[in-house]
Amino acid sequence: MATQGQVITCKAAVAWEANKPLVIEDVQVAPPQAGEVRIKILFTALCHTDAYTWSGKDPEGLFPCILGHEAAGIVESVGEGVTEVQPGDHVIPCYQAECKECKFCKSGKTNLCGKVRAATGVGVMLSDRKSRFSIDGKPIYHFMGTSTFSQYTVVHDVSVAKIDPHAPLEKVCLLGCGVPTGLGAVWNTAKVEAGSTVAIFGLGTVGLAVAEGAKTAGASRIIGIDIDSKKYEIGKNFGITEFVNPKDHEKPIQQVIIDLTDGGVDYSFECIGNVQLMRAALECCHKGWGTSVIVGVAASGQEISTRPFQLVTGRVWKGTAFGGFKSRSQVPLLVDKYMHKEIKVDEYVTHQLTLAEINKAFDLMHEGGCLRCVLDVHP
Amino acid sequence: MATQGQVITCKAAVAWEANKPLVIEDVQVAPPQAGEVRIKILFTALCHTDAYTWSGKDPEGLFPCILGHEAAGIVESVGEGVTEVQPGDHVIPCYQAECKECKFCKSGKTNLCGKVRAATGVGVMLSDRKSRFSIDGKPIYHFMGTSTFSQYTVVHDVSVAKIDPHAPLEKVCLLGCGVPTGLGAVWNTAKVEAGSTVAIFGLGTVGLAVAEGAKTAGASRIIGIDIDSKKYEIGKNFGITEFVNPKDHEKPIQQVIIDLTDGGVDYSFECIGNVQLMRAALECCHKGWGTSVIVGVAASGQEISTRPFQLVTGRVWKGTAFGGFKSRSQVPLLVDKYMHKEIKVDEYVTHQLTLAEINKAFDLMHEGGCLRCVLDVHP
Ligand SMILES: NC(=O)c1ccc[n+]([C@@H]2O[C@H](COP(=O)([O-])OP(=O)(O)OC[C@H]3O[C@@H](n4cnc5c(N)ncnc54)[C@H](O)[C@@H]3O)[C@@H](O)[C@H]2O)c1
Ligand SMILES: NC(=O)c1ccc[n+]([C@@H]2O[C@H](COP(=O)([O-])OP(=O)(O)OC[C@H]3O[C@@H](n4cnc5c(N)ncnc54)[C@H](O)[C@@H]3O)[C@@H](O)[C@H]2O)c1
Ligand SMILES: [Zn+2]
Ligand SMILES: [Zn+2]
Ligand SMILES: [Zn+2]
Ligand SMILES: [Zn+2]
Repeated sequence: MATQGQVITCKAAVAWEANKPLVIEDVQVAPPQAGEVRIKILFTALCHTDAYTWSGKDPEGLFPCILGHEAAGIVESVGEGVTEVQPGDHVIPCYQAECKECKFCKSGKTNLCGKVRAATGVGVMLSDRKSRFSIDGKPIYHFMGTSTFSQYTVVHDVSVAKIDPHAPLEKVCLLGCGVPTGLGAVWNTAKVEAGSTVAIFGLGTVGLAVAEGAKTAGASRIIGIDIDSKKYEIGKNFGITEFVNPKDHEKPIQQVIIDLTDGGVDYSFECIGNVQLMRAALECCHKGWGTSVIVGVAASGQEISTRPFQLVTGRVWKGTAFGGFKSRSQVPLLVDKYMHKEIKVDEYVTHQLTLAEINKAFDLMHEGGCLRCVLDVHP
Repeated sequence: MATQGQVITCKAAVAWEANKPLVIEDVQVAPPQAGEVRIKILFTALCHTDAYTWSGKDPEGLFPCILGHEAAGIVESVGEGVTEVQPGDHVIPCYQAECKECKFCKSGKTNLCGKVRAATGVGVMLSDRKSRFSIDGKPIYHFMGTSTFSQYTVVHDVSVAKIDPHAPLEKVCLLGCGVPTGLGAVWNTAKVEAGSTVAIFGLGTVGLAVAEGAKTAGASRIIGIDIDSKKYEIGKNFGITEFVNPKDHEKPIQQVIIDLTDGGVDYSFECIGNVQLMRAALECCHKGWGTSVIVGVAASGQEISTRPFQLVTGRVWKGTAFGGFKSRSQVPLLVDKYMHKEIKVDEYVTHQLTLAEINKAFDLMHEGGCLRCVLDVHP
């Protein structure tokens, strides 16, 4: 390819400062070094972690940076030693790496990988602790090891999932974060069995994916809880069988669920990021066996609490990151499931805009009607 | 038997008021009604729940009452419909019932049983919501469905484990609470695998039984944590391989354990009842898979807290009651294991007194050298 080994100048949405509108800039994207892959991003969606870091509330957020972590694209070029992908491959960049070699990857117990986190956590690449993005020589930080709000990005090879080239990238980009998180919370983390009762706090993309996961797992009752009652109609398409709006009740929401279910649910999922509701989600679980999974990400510094008696009497408190899926191994399988119509993806895409309209897309996230807004990065 | 169907007058240690010395009284013990069993208690130990309720800190504590829940004895008589035990059987009364019929018992997921709890929780028998203990016609409350600080007690049939008549009752009385709790926390609740690293907070009877459970499960490192450094020598006999006294460190204890273990332990157990240490126990677990089990019982109203990120990054928070053992089915098997020298019991008995000396036994509980004090109830 003509661009291989060259610096590419392309458009990217740069977050210069916290809480200031992103600016579409011409950025220079350096060629991939050893163990790195440069990807032409075709479509990217927005997720709450982008909004959270952009808001300035993330104490680890670094500016200026290029946000974005739910995307799909095509490999433009690869650095030395990269064998598992080559130019032209269709890929999903993954914020959870999978090196298959570190103690995490080899444990057989977790999808977290330790290989590149020390670098991606501080916005740089592992080999030289530098960024591959710059504007007129001034470096721009990476974000979550993905930085997909750019026409080209550079990622570590351990963060690239190679997928079926027939999959529509404007849809499967969602398999980079929210949808797998919800499905995997049910399938991998909670391991919901057929016949179980389930409560889902928050019916955004993640909560709806939990509902779909629970439905495919054969749950007998799937209770959605949201302060936006419009989510009931939407939720039915994803498997929600009952709906509770906490605003309609004076009792604490955990008590409402306990009363509805003769003692509590078998499994609950918090998909909002609110520590009060994380507590409610635990406490609405059935004594003896109820398991609650924290999926939502709370603001920095916030803490969860409960009486220890809740756990001593048999409830289990867990959490999940990327739904427990191993990214490079399992994202391609999720793409295949989508291609075989075994999981929904299209239904989460409520809005489509272009990269240039990204600030409008951030505004949309606060609107009840928006699940995912997908941006065309090369319109 | 001559006493069958008769009221028995015998000695019992009565807690008339919170925090006042127990008084040995002549109490009347009514005959067992349908579904009840009257047991001649031969030996009883003291456990922290007795001391906690006696102290007045338990908001559900009722006075006057007869405390005690770690004991062994012989069935004196049985009420109508009782088929699984008969007079002369050697038994351990169990504060966790097992009816084999309620939704808890049938769930296959928990050892908690719902059948008699509503009655035992308020110090009475299920059938008529009355006590079988009285002094000159004034009722004395039951405690935990067991009330073993009495020469005779009446319990529900679902709370009686029939054991090998050759087992020494002055030893196996301990299998009524503390020792099974520790062993079961490892075997049933955490399911520790061979090669795992384990941290145990608090090396009393419960923590030492956790150590023994971890050793038999093949744990590679068993780190004991106690503010009493004498516990290291004692702990070695039970499997402790390393010891940390938090007082010797300025760093938070969770950080000390993380540093010792290259990122944290696979399993941790809190066996003290201190909510700060419950947090430390969770946070010293390894990212990705570490599981922490709360065994200690905190004072009423106290809460545990942590950052939800601890769970989102893969740690699991659990608790255990009676180590997850099903009482009637499994206590007899633990007695057999003891008889086959597969588990220790004798080693926990550090003191032996008589029922009349019970106040001295309560004082002993606060002394570092005391694990369990066993009282001879019919000296
Ligand atoms: N653990 C992970 O790996 C992971 C991955 C992706 C997203 N997340 C997190 O999952 C959470 C959900 O993401 P999303 O994209 O579905 O978000 P979303 O904003 O689309 O959905 C949140 C839903 O919660 C509802 N809600 C808000 N406050 C509520 C309250 N007090 N009571 C009841 N309902 C309430 C909203 O009406 C909305 O429907 C976010 O915190 C996100 O950061 C976690
Ligand atoms: N979950 C259950 O079913 C169950 C059953 C029995 C007992 N328990 C509870 O288990 C706990 C332990 O019981 P036990 O009989 O072993 O008690 P114990 O008092 O004999 O042992 C507690 C140990 O903790 C140590 N300790 C106290 N404060 C400490 C601190 N700040 N840091 C480190 N170590 C500290 C003490 O030195 C002692 O060795 C109690 O809370 C008891 O109520 C729970
Ligand atoms: Zn995301
Ligand atoms: Zn790895
Ligand atoms: Zn006890
Ligand atoms: Zn039962």
